[in-house]
This record gives sequence, structure tokens and C-alpha cells, in this order.
Amino acid sequence: RIDQQRLWESLMAMAEIGATSKGGSCRLAFSEEDTQGRRLLMEWCEQLGCETRVDDVGNIFIRRQGREPALDPVSTGSHLDTQPKGGRFDGILGVLAGLEVFRTLDTEGIVTRRPLELIVWGNEEGSRFSPAMVASGTYAGVFEPAYTLAREDNDGITYGEALAQTGLCTKGFKTGPMLDSYFELHIEQGPVLEQEEKSLGIVTGVQGIRWFDVTLSGVAAHAGPTPMRYRRDAMMAAARLMDQIHQHVQSDPTGNARVTVGTLNIPSASRNVIPGEVSMTVDLRHVEEAKLEALEVMFTSMLEQVSEDYGVSVTQERIWKSEVVDFDEACIEIVRQAVARQKTPSREMMSGAGHDAVYVSRVAPTAMIFVPCLDGISHNEAEYASPEDCALGCQVLLESMLARADR
Amino acid sequence: RIDQQRLWESLMAMAEIGATSKGGSCRLAFSEEDTQGRRLLMEWCEQLGCETRVDDVGNIFIRRQGREPALDPVSTGSHLDTQPKGGRFDGILGVLAGLEVFRTLDTEGIVTRRPLELIVWGNEEGSRFSPAMVASGTYAGVFEPAYTLAREDNDGITYGEALAQTGLCTKGFKTGPMLDSYFELHIEQGPVLEQEEKSLGIVTGVQGIRWFDVTLSGVAAHAGPTPMRYRRDAMMAAARLMDQIHQHVQSDPTGNARVTVGTLNIPSASRNVIPGEVSMTVDLRHVEEAKLEALEVMFTSMLEQVSEDYGVSVTQERIWKSEVVDFDEACIEIVRQAVARQKTPSREMMSGAGHDAVYVSRVAPTAMIFVPCLDGISHNEAEYASPEDCALGCQVLLESMLARADR
Ligand SMILES: NC(=O)NCCC(=O)O
Ligand SMILES: NC(=O)NCCC(=O)O
Repeated sequence: RIDQQRLWESLMAMAEIGATSKGGSCRLAFSEEDTQGRRLLMEWCEQLGCETRVDDVGNIFIRRQGREPALDPVSTGSHLDTQPKGGRFDGILGVLAGLEVFRTLDTEGIVTRRPLELIVWGNEEGSRFSPAMVASGTYAGVFEPAYTLAREDNDGITYGEALAQTGLCTKGFKTGPMLDSYFELHIEQGPVLEQEEKSLGIVTGVQGIRWFDVTLSGVAAHAGPTPMRYRRDAMMAAARLMDQIHQHVQSDPTGNARVTVGTLNIPSASRNVIPGEVSMTVDLRHVEEAKLEALEVMFTSMLEQVSEDYGVSVTQERIWKSEVVDFDEACIEIVRQAVARQKTPSREMMSGAGHDAVYVSRVAPTAMIFVPCLDGISHNEAEYASPEDCALGCQVLLESMLARADR
Repeated sequence: RIDQQRLWESLMAMAEIGATSKGGSCRLAFSEEDTQGRRLLMEWCEQLGCETRVDDVGNIFIRRQGREPALDPVSTGSHLDTQPKGGRFDGILGVLAGLEVFRTLDTEGIVTRRPLELIVWGNEEGSRFSPAMVASGTYAGVFEPAYTLAREDNDGITYGEALAQTGLCTKGFKTGPMLDSYFELHIEQGPVLEQEEKSLGIVTGVQGIRWFDVTLSGVAAHAGPTPMRYRRDAMMAAARLMDQIHQHVQSDPTGNARVTVGTLNIPSASRNVIPGEVSMTVDLRHVEEAKLEALEVMFTSMLEQVSEDYGVSVTQERIWKSEVVDFDEACIEIVRQAVARQKTPSREMMSGAGHDAVYVSRVAPTAMIFVPCLDGISHNEAEYASPEDCALGCQVLLESMLARADR
């Protein structure tokens, strides 16, 4: 059995790095804080005698050797980077649960047949460098390393520059090994498990995600003497667009469609200037690919209508598309059985968030485990998961990995 | 007659200070550029033998002596500060037309009975320090100097600190003299004169303005796993609010109501985070005070409704209120007669923008003169007024001041 207390203490120790005023964490990808967190994890693993290597897009591969070192490893992992005002569990739980699995096996003196691999993926959040999960996507061959290294943050710093600054990369180590399988533990980041009073989720797949950069360009003019009928107000056009797509999504009877405008910017904004330009990001999601496609089509037609009605020109660029994923049936079954042994309420579900498991599932049999988080809140400093639930998820992870590692 | 070419050259020389890439100007109040522009004007005036003094909130008073120095001066003026991406005429025309009046009188060897005073008011735009017209308002006794000096810009720099940095203030000169009268020439900043093919506007008053700081606070959460029905999305609430007040204002049959959301900010924004907070500014205007009051009441009730419908808490602070102003009938009549002598199409109108004349009118008989600007555009780098129209407005200013100065 894994050690609940030890797992909790490692979570709390990690949370001190980049701690925010309201109890969350800020470790933007490849920032000083992120690097400090990653170094701490690597030290902990090296103390267990594990070999740690960092590939050329910043993924950390940590090997616990097996009886047959030539076999592909059974792997787990997640990420240590956070949102600007992020929580202490999103990603971190998956990584530290992997560490706890290693520590438990050490304590019990167990050596598995296959090697085990703990992986800390780079820049998962997509908050500093867009898109999200770009480093696991590069490992999986979805993105070219050159594409990934050229991503830019808001200050024009590239992914490659930020990564080089960390000094973490292992010379000559381009990318990680083939994987026998991949199991990822994560908080749900939504309210479903908590609402249904379930402690464990068996994740069967991940909904599709599409990210857009949208700009609306009208004419900047004076807020006072410009009559309403002469205006080409980019902000009011954007407001109409947001309200329309929001109403459309809310009216979906299945409740499976989702829309979020997370960022909105008015260049050279001033109180008494009609905004001449608005740029914003749009995040559309659905568990069915065809419905997500239809949602995008609907959004585009609303944008065109607003363009006409408000006399603003518009651009819409889809900068990322993560298709609906179904995980591997054999891995799901292993998780299902491990969950059953815990004798606690559980359910099968799709993930609403993208995870590194999305891309890893393209190159290795994959499944995920969810635990509930308080009020379903994530990407918020107030994010919380109880020590008991974290431990329960970690136990399922341990049993799943063992089931596969001795095959 | 004033010299069209000389006036135009001084406008273009001023525009070089803080020139922007698209042909506009950026001279935020009390910035280096603003200070440089003000110094240039003071040098030009000192070359004419005028005395220049700067009061303790940064207003420049420039005296051209009259035959009876003890009489209150006939005054004119405007401002040299601009919007972040402002034009070359808004405010500047009024100041440089005053200079051109002085130069013309010098050339013609005319000394008026009353002294003349050219005034460059500080921080008119309200873009760096809110509210607008705060320095002319302080001169007029509407704001306490201590209030004005304590205004803060977005970087937390106070008005007083920024002003001290300019080194412009004249020691021991607290405030300017009583004024016999005040005439201000300005571009219309709207499309009415141009649309009606008129070259001159006789401004009879100014519409009322109310400025609000509004915040909506919901709950930041993950854009993916959070079902629509659980969200308390501050951005979507703000979008609904903006769309509703915009529709309401647009449906006004008189076309006299106006609403602008010039700035909107999401703290710690991220693409895949449902905004937990949105702050925005709202600018409401109307030519009738009672209707403006009703508009504010409507806005407040919409905000409350949105608060209820979206589960967000809201705050609304009215940070500025400039009441509807009617100018002085005697001064308007002087302008009317001067305009009539130009034998060019003109009209009487209310100003849509606030001007320093709003506050000065509380302590001195006041009127304004408008000239058209291209496409009605202002608060935009593309702002333009023709040399002919600028000269025509300046000629009316000269004749109006002379009519009053020899009384
Ligand atoms: N888990 C997580 O926050 N992933 C980032 C990608 C997404 O927005 O779903
Ligand atoms: N003329 C001008 O831009 N004044 C600023 C105050 C206002 O917004 O009307």
C-alpha cells in the first residue's frame, strides 16, 4: 500500500515553490519556479537511485530499472507547470503519485519484470506557450521539435530560449524510449465525481478541443461625439459574438458543448475611445468530434454575421485542434479492476480537460484515473483534493502499473 | 486675417513631438513628450514677449498684455496632451490657434483694451489620469488641488509626482487669474459637420458624461471539465451586459444616448481558464440630464440582472459625472456673428465630447467653435482637419476675442 502521509508531504513541499498569496502555485512552464520544482523532483528520484534524463523539448524521463531492462517500460507521469494562478494538484498529483509508487516499491523491496518510467512532460498547461501538451505531443510525433521550440510567449521569448535557460536538458538525449503502456492519475478538474459522491473515475477518453485566435477590427473613434449609428465598435461586436455563442452552447440539450473566452485584449485601450480592435481567444470543446466540428461551423457563421452587422472585419485562426480520444481497452480494464478492489463508489467518464495522455495514447496503450477536487474547481488557487482521495488514486495507479509490469 | 500657412506649420511642428507610426501623436499627460510639447509652445510665446506661468496643477497661463492691464483678460485655450494613439488636432488646434491669434495681432501691431490670455490646460484627455479635464476643473473650483494631485495612472504614479517631474510649475504661482470670458476652438471629433457639409459649428453647450468602473466577479475554473451549468463566468456575464446596454442605447429613437466600453481587463487571463473576474470602464452620455440619469438607472438594473442570472457579484462605481452644460448666450452671440461674417455653411450644435470649456464655463462666460474633421474620426492616429477649416476656425476665434476684448 502507498503511504498517504508521505504522498501528501511531497505535494505540500512542491506547492511551496512559486506559492501564491491565496494558497495556489505559479510555476509557468520553464520559469525559474518551474525549473526549481523539476529539480526538486529529480533530486528526490536520484535519491532512489533512479536515472533521470531530459529530452530536447524538456520532458523528464526517470527510470526505475526492472528485472528485464531490455523490455519497454510501463510508464506514468503528468506535469509540474501550472496556470498563472494555478492550484497545487493539477498535474502535480500525477507526478508525485509516480514518485510515491517508486518509493513504495523501494520500501517493499519489489523489483518489477518490466522497467518503470516516470515522465514529467513540459509545458502542459499551454498557458505560457500555446498549444497545451505540446511537449508530450512532440514525444508522440504530433508536433515537430522545431515547431515546439519556436513557440513564443507573450514577451516574445521562444520555448527553445526558455528551455535553454533552465539548463536542464541532458546532452545527446533527444527523446524518451518506446513505452509498453502509460497510466496517468489526475484530479478531475470538474464537479462530476464530487456531485455524484464518487471517489474514483475510470477515464475512458478525452473530449475534443479547438483553440482559436480571433480579432475584430472596426474603427477607433471618440466615445462622445460619435453617434451610435456611425460606430464600428469592435468591443460591442465581440460582446454580441460572445453572448451568441454562449447562448447557443447553453441551449445544447446534452450539455456536452462548451465555450470559453479566456483572454480578451483591446490594444491602446482608453475609457473614452471606441475600441478599434479587439483580440480574444476562444476554446471550444465537445465529446463528439462531429458535434465539435458543427460547433466550429456555427461559431464561424456567427462571427461572419457579427462582422456584417457591426461593420467590423474579422480574422479567425484555429491554432490547435485536439481530437476526441478513446483510451486503450486493455489499459482501461486494468484500471477498472484496480478501482474495483478499492471498494469505493466510482464511475467511468470522459475527461473534459486535455492531458498528456491524449498524445501519449497515439504511441502507447493508455488509460487515466481521476480523483475528485473540491467544488470541481481547478485552474484556480483554491484548487483542492483531499489526502484520502489523492492516496486512493495513487493506490489505483500502483496496482495498475504492477498489473502491467509483471506481464 | 490670420495666416493659414503659419498656423498649419505650427500644428505640424507640434505633431512631430511623440509622433506615432500611423501619423498620429502620443503625448500622455505630463510624459516627456507632453512636457516637450508644452515647452515648445512656451518658447514660441516668450518670443512674442508674452509672460508664461504654470499653476500648481500644471495649467499654463500665457498673457498678452492689453492697454488696461488691470482688466480681466479675454481668454482662449485647450490642451496639448493626447490619447495613447491620438491625433494631431484634438486640443492642439485650440492652443495653436490661440498662438496664431497672438502672432496675427503682433504682425498687425494691434494692442487690445483688455489683456488676452492663452491657457494650456493639463491632463485634458483623462486617459493617463482619470477623470478628464481635471486641471481646468481644479482651476474652476470643481476639484480640490489635493484630489487632482492624488490621481494615479495605471503604474501607480500620481498626478503630483508626474507633474513635479516635468519641472514646469512656476514657484509661488498657485492658480490663474479671473477671466472676462473664454472661447475655445476645437475639432468636432464627430461626423455631423462633415456629413452636413458645414465648415463651422457654433457650440451652444456640451452633453452630460458619466464614467463608471465596473467589476464582475465569478469563479475561475477550468475551461474543459466545467459543465456550462456550473459556471460563474465573469466574461460571459460582461458580454451579456455590454450587449444589452448597447441594444438599449441603439434603440433610442432620438439617437442621443451613447455608451462605450473602452477598456476591459481579465486579471491573470489564460486561454483555458473561465474568467473569474472582469473589470471594465463604461462611458454613458446624453444631451439631456434627466435622460442620462435614466440611462444610468437602466444600466444599473441590467448589471443587477446579469449578476443574478450569471451568479456573479458586481460592483459599480461612478468615478466622474460631468453635467450637461449650456454656454453663455452673450458669448454664443459673439461667435454667431463672427461665423456669419465668414459666409460659409455652419450650424449650431451641442458638443459630444467634454472640453475644458465645460469647467471654465462655471467661472467665466464661455462659448466654443467647432471645425469638421475627416470622417468624424478622433482619438485615432488618422484624425485630420484641413488647413482651410483650421484657418477658418482660427479666424472666428480671432474675431470673437477682439469683439470682446475691446468692450
Ligand atoms: N489539464 C489541463 O489543464 N490541461 C490543459 C489543456 C486543457 O486546456 O485541457
Ligand atoms: N475632447 C476630449 O477628448 N475630451 C475628453 C473628455 C471626453 O471624453 O469627452
